[in-house]
Amino acid sequence: MPGNSFGSSFRITTFGESHGPAVGVVIDGCPPRVPVAVEEIQRELDRRRPGQSAITTQRREPDQVEILSGMHEGLTLGTPLAMLVHNQDMRSGDYDEMKTKFRPSHADYTYKAKYGIRAWQGGGRASARETIGRVAAGVVARKVLAGVDIVAWVERVADIEANVDAATVTRAAVDANIVRCPEAATAEKMIARIDEARKAGDSLGGVVAAVARGVPVGLGEPVFDKLEADLAKAMLSLPASKGFEIGSGFAGTLLTGSQHNDPFYDAGGRVRTRSNRSGGVQGGISNGEDICIRVAFKPTATILREQQTVDEDGHDTTIKARGRHDPCVLPRAIPIVEAMLALVLADHSLRQRAQCG
Amino acid sequence: MPGNSFGSSFRITTFGESHGPAVGVVIDGCPPRVPVAVEEIQRELDRRRPGQSAITTQRREPDQVEILSGMHEGLTLGTPLAMLVHNQDMRSGDYDEMKTKFRPSHADYTYKAKYGIRAWQGGGRASARETIGRVAAGVVARKVLAGVDIVAWVERVADIEANVDAATVTRAAVDANIVRCPEAATAEKMIARIDEARKAGDSLGGVVAAVARGVPVGLGEPVFDKLEADLAKAMLSLPASKGFEIGSGFAGTLLTGSQHNDPFYDAGGRVRTRSNRSGGVQGGISNGEDICIRVAFKPTATILREQQTVDEDGHDTTIKARGRHDPCVLPRAIPIVEAMLALVLADHSLRQRAQCG
Amino acid sequence: MPGNSFGSSFRITTFGESHGPAVGVVIDGCPPRVPVAVEEIQRELDRRRPGQSAITTQRREPDQVEILSGMHEGLTLGTPLAMLVHNQDMRSGDYDEMKTKFRPSHADYTYKAKYGIRAWQGGGRASARETIGRVAAGVVARKVLAGVDIVAWVERVADIEANVDAATVTRAAVDANIVRCPEAATAEKMIARIDEARKAGDSLGGVVAAVARGVPVGLGEPVFDKLEADLAKAMLSLPASKGFEIGSGFAGTLLTGSQHNDPFYDAGGRVRTRSNRSGGVQGGISNGEDICIRVAFKPTATILREQQTVDEDGHDTTIKARGRHDPCVLPRAIPIVEAMLALVLADHSLRQRAQCG
Amino acid sequence: MPGNSFGSSFRITTFGESHGPAVGVVIDGCPPRVPVAVEEIQRELDRRRPGQSAITTQRREPDQVEILSGMHEGLTLGTPLAMLVHNQDMRSGDYDEMKTKFRPSHADYTYKAKYGIRAWQGGGRASARETIGRVAAGVVARKVLAGVDIVAWVERVADIEANVDAATVTRAAVDANIVRCPEAATAEKMIARIDEARKAGDSLGGVVAAVARGVPVGLGEPVFDKLEADLAKAMLSLPASKGFEIGSGFAGTLLTGSQHNDPFYDAGGRVRTRSNRSGGVQGGISNGEDICIRVAFKPTATILREQQTVDEDGHDTTIKARGRHDPCVLPRAIPIVEAMLALVLADHSLRQRAQCG
Repeated sequence: MPGNSFGSSFRITTFGESHGPAVGVVIDGCPPRVPVAVEEIQRELDRRRPGQSAITTQRREPDQVEILSGMHEGLTLGTPLAMLVHNQDMRSGDYDEMKTKFRPSHADYTYKAKYGIRAWQGGGRASARETIGRVAAGVVARKVLAGVDIVAWVERVADIEANVDAATVTRAAVDANIVRCPEAATAEKMIARIDEARKAGDSLGGVVAAVARGVPVGLGEPVFDKLEADLAKAMLSLPASKGFEIGSGFAGTLLTGSQHNDPFYDAGGRVRTRSNRSGGVQGGISNGEDICIRVAFKPTATILREQQTVDEDGHDTTIKARGRHDPCVLPRAIPIVEAMLALVLADHSLRQRAQCG
Repeated sequence: MPGNSFGSSFRITTFGESHGPAVGVVIDGCPPRVPVAVEEIQRELDRRRPGQSAITTQRREPDQVEILSGMHEGLTLGTPLAMLVHNQDMRSGDYDEMKTKFRPSHADYTYKAKYGIRAWQGGGRASARETIGRVAAGVVARKVLAGVDIVAWVERVADIEANVDAATVTRAAVDANIVRCPEAATAEKMIARIDEARKAGDSLGGVVAAVARGVPVGLGEPVFDKLEADLAKAMLSLPASKGFEIGSGFAGTLLTGSQHNDPFYDAGGRVRTRSNRSGGVQGGISNGEDICIRVAFKPTATILREQQTVDEDGHDTTIKARGRHDPCVLPRAIPIVEAMLALVLADHSLRQRAQCG
Repeated sequence: MPGNSFGSSFRITTFGESHGPAVGVVIDGCPPRVPVAVEEIQRELDRRRPGQSAITTQRREPDQVEILSGMHEGLTLGTPLAMLVHNQDMRSGDYDEMKTKFRPSHADYTYKAKYGIRAWQGGGRASARETIGRVAAGVVARKVLAGVDIVAWVERVADIEANVDAATVTRAAVDANIVRCPEAATAEKMIARIDEARKAGDSLGGVVAAVARGVPVGLGEPVFDKLEADLAKAMLSLPASKGFEIGSGFAGTLLTGSQHNDPFYDAGGRVRTRSNRSGGVQGGISNGEDICIRVAFKPTATILREQQTVDEDGHDTTIKARGRHDPCVLPRAIPIVEAMLALVLADHSLRQRAQCG
Repeated sequence: MPGNSFGSSFRITTFGESHGPAVGVVIDGCPPRVPVAVEEIQRELDRRRPGQSAITTQRREPDQVEILSGMHEGLTLGTPLAMLVHNQDMRSGDYDEMKTKFRPSHADYTYKAKYGIRAWQGGGRASARETIGRVAAGVVARKVLAGVDIVAWVERVADIEANVDAATVTRAAVDANIVRCPEAATAEKMIARIDEARKAGDSLGGVVAAVARGVPVGLGEPVFDKLEADLAKAMLSLPASKGFEIGSGFAGTLLTGSQHNDPFYDAGGRVRTRSNRSGGVQGGISNGEDICIRVAFKPTATILREQQTVDEDGHDTTIKARGRHDPCVLPRAIPIVEAMLALVLADHSLRQRAQCG
């Protein structure tokens, strides 16, 4: 079973290398008669694209999307939706050294070891350009999820942390600054720190938080496809992610059961919980509360400093990356995390319809 | 797509409710001619079964396994291996109150909301008894993974933390005490704390760590079925788990790229890394270093204290669980985490064989 | 991807060898709150079981089914339904010769070649006993398909052919005789011919026809999972089947388009077709007309005559089967074909619900 | 589970409508380092494309293929291979009547009933243009299947039948005439008959036969994914196909077991069969003999004659197709049948590698 598809009822398959002709996605299983405009998809790709601010990579890609199939007069047909972005601003020259040397903590070595061949320019398939298809598909997923509101934000960069209310945070607040942290003062500090790292030829990591509000009760398929299990997989499938939490996460392990449990109460005829340490999921199934997750992103592997490594022959050497790289992936990870969250929810929403009608 | 199967090439399907006739598993895709003894499976189920020590639930189940198919004279046939454990020590009486009331932070409410019906005795399908099938299958997975060494241990209970060397920890050290923490002094403290919680009718959570040593280079299928993505899914599919980390995890986000990257070096003709913040996986593919993960388990939801909740009609009420429950799931989670780790690796090992021969 | 599962939304996994402890099935994806009685399943297994008449194998198996999970007070839970039949009347002695020799046109040689090991007694996994799980699951599938009426019958044995009206044939008429051909006079001839073959130590083949009436419009997923494609797969997955037709089938290739097309007409507000050469499917999607299929079954491979073959070392030898075998599989294939038809329709019915709500 | 993917280890997903911007395919799971030239793919698309002879549709499409991903310096990367053909010679005007009326025995009505929307121009997704992706992917599949020789041919048009030796027929002989029947004299008659039908505004059906020579022993996954089951599904997923046979097929049902069985013999250290009524598959697994199949194609549904039908409002009306249609799909079906045969074998070849190493 190959690994380039995600989802079972709402299913996407992405393709494309960083320096190949194009990257894209095929969505299969999208319900018919969903209105989708190419502008909506473009808008979201613009949030993801490189070169959008001083703290992201300066690779300049317009990332113009084309919809090749699955649409008829502005509505989905129920047939596969293929979407494509041609690669443009490719400077293979920046990658000459990577042709023969492996970047530490990048995918260069493992791809070569696994496949016996690799597209060495720009990371090939392991490039973040692969996420273009995810973001495009995420827009369609959100259209399927009418009534669900999804927002992600940068919660922490290195040790600079914001304190954001998941219940009320808006996408407008997130997009109000280039680091995509809705707390303005904290955002300034983050930007300064990222800029500092960039100048030092170094990179930073951090934590992205996300919430889905308005999710219906009942999504998630016990026992292996619990909602949190599929969310964890979705997030750990992102480049540079190293950890996932739902609800109280690792911190919740410090509480006792009597402190941690979320009491149920009758909220005017609707069952709700007084606290939400469950993060909106109990027994693998959404309970109608906000779905709250956090994702750890390591500092970008590609840095502009000399590092110890080996070459393709296995001999010790050093490497110093050139070229255009994000000193911190978090700002551009926001639309990607939102897309993956939407994809998981859309998939489970169709699955729930199949089994429980 | 229903949710009771896991894996794609080495694929398991579990079935069974806590108080139904039996729980079990079907393994499909196991290679032929693998020697499997029922005693090996029984031994591992004994590590998982209830009633094994003072700090686990006192439900007394022998959990005797039968192999129903897929074997011939001690070897696998390449056909499905079905394994079964009949449920025995069921006291439905303990659950009478749960027939009409939902336990906070348990699966009672969401199952009812999703399916419109639930097996209210003992948690039904959401019971930890479901993991019997996983543990049984995990033994077979380990036989498929010749040369791979998998060990899990309790790293932290509440705020009591052990400092264990993943490179050298042994299963014997883990099993040397009932809490399954290989650091004897810390284990004592953990046991005392769990006992305290048990007496208080309360419960505790914590962190399980696990390592897989000897994993070949090349396992993991970019981009969605990255090895860490499937591991994250595996772990978040476990009852009570709330978080997952690989390698440096959340802590790694505090480092800079130059601090975090794992330098490659020539280890006598084999490419290795000097540090292992990657946790054995780069670009979604194993790099031959130890695979190191951590899983957060919340405090057990079922506690023997009065809690606020609602009944099946949605009215406010209180509930106080009776019966036999684990005050801390971590000691019994050890064989389960090991099983899931083995299942992911066995599956990817067959997948790698399919694609890369 | 292993091969012992069928269906994607309503998904079954069968297990078990002919002479192992048990055969069975796990159904995953069955909607909740479907009433299922073990007696209904038993009744259908009784139609399939050996030893039921003079023209079937004399192996005497009660084939008593147990439901192990997924049920609560007579209703499905939405969780996996596991069903089991223990093997009983096993005379391994009958198979001694097969331990070292391959029966011509049976699965002995290919299993050995593929897996390097085989359960030589009674055909192992290739035994028709594997279909017990299919038949049990088919009963549940039929409960899911409220309003759909499925009937199969023996249309032809060797060159003795019945002319049966698919629009009106009943299961009662089919079960009125032991060969399961609803045309009484033809049935007599078939029985006589089968008895003749049996006495001669030989075997016969033939054609099973089946109809599904009352199938809603819209089932089938273009382009690869067209309804007829999944039906074809279902039928060719049956032991001894060699061909499949839907609607006009091979005979339809002799007509011109103007003769073959099914004209649409307004049947009182409902779109219907005047003829049904399409067999109830157009463009891979059900059109509301009767779904009509035909399946070719070859003569049973195991015969009581001396035949040329090779042994496990590849040396020429002869083999003469002993034991109890069906001289013609068709009468017992009826409930199996019906089960597979029901399974495909139930699966597509859930899939349609997922995508088109 | 959506229906636009095929295969499990070597997996393709096709997309595109007849009159949308493009049609194409993504291959996921192709092994790395397979040499693939765009010219090889183009050559096969040229065998499939419209307008290539007097007896095919006159729609003139160059069907120029682009490879968008998955390749590096002429070799596959082990990552998804996306291939694209832009649609060009679209005359929507020819389809105006179809906007409001359903063509008998076509997919117009069922697509509308299923999805509530349809791309009415040229059949949309139900157009034979969808098979472009299959043919392109089939070329890659054949490269994966080194040593396997696949040939399909037109065996019968209406009642004009050729008698072709599957063991020796060559692709050159098949392509020697425009109807793709390797028996020259019979081909002439077929061409004349098709031309006659075309002039009469009518259409013809027939039978395509195909052989795969050199298939290794051991392909096919019992029990549901038997090789013949997946072949049957592959063939019945083709537009206009109504039947499938393997080996002796329906005719074999007229024989007795002693006549039908294929005796094994020792062919110089290799186990072979004296006859091949099994069609190269026993127990769902290839036995090393030629795989021989036959597929029934109905006469093209779109004919240039007035026919009774209903409009989108369900009212009786008549329709008379205009435009460019194949009077007989068989000549152009040849590369498509070959592609599907290659796809099934490539998939099972990788699956076999996964399970049996």
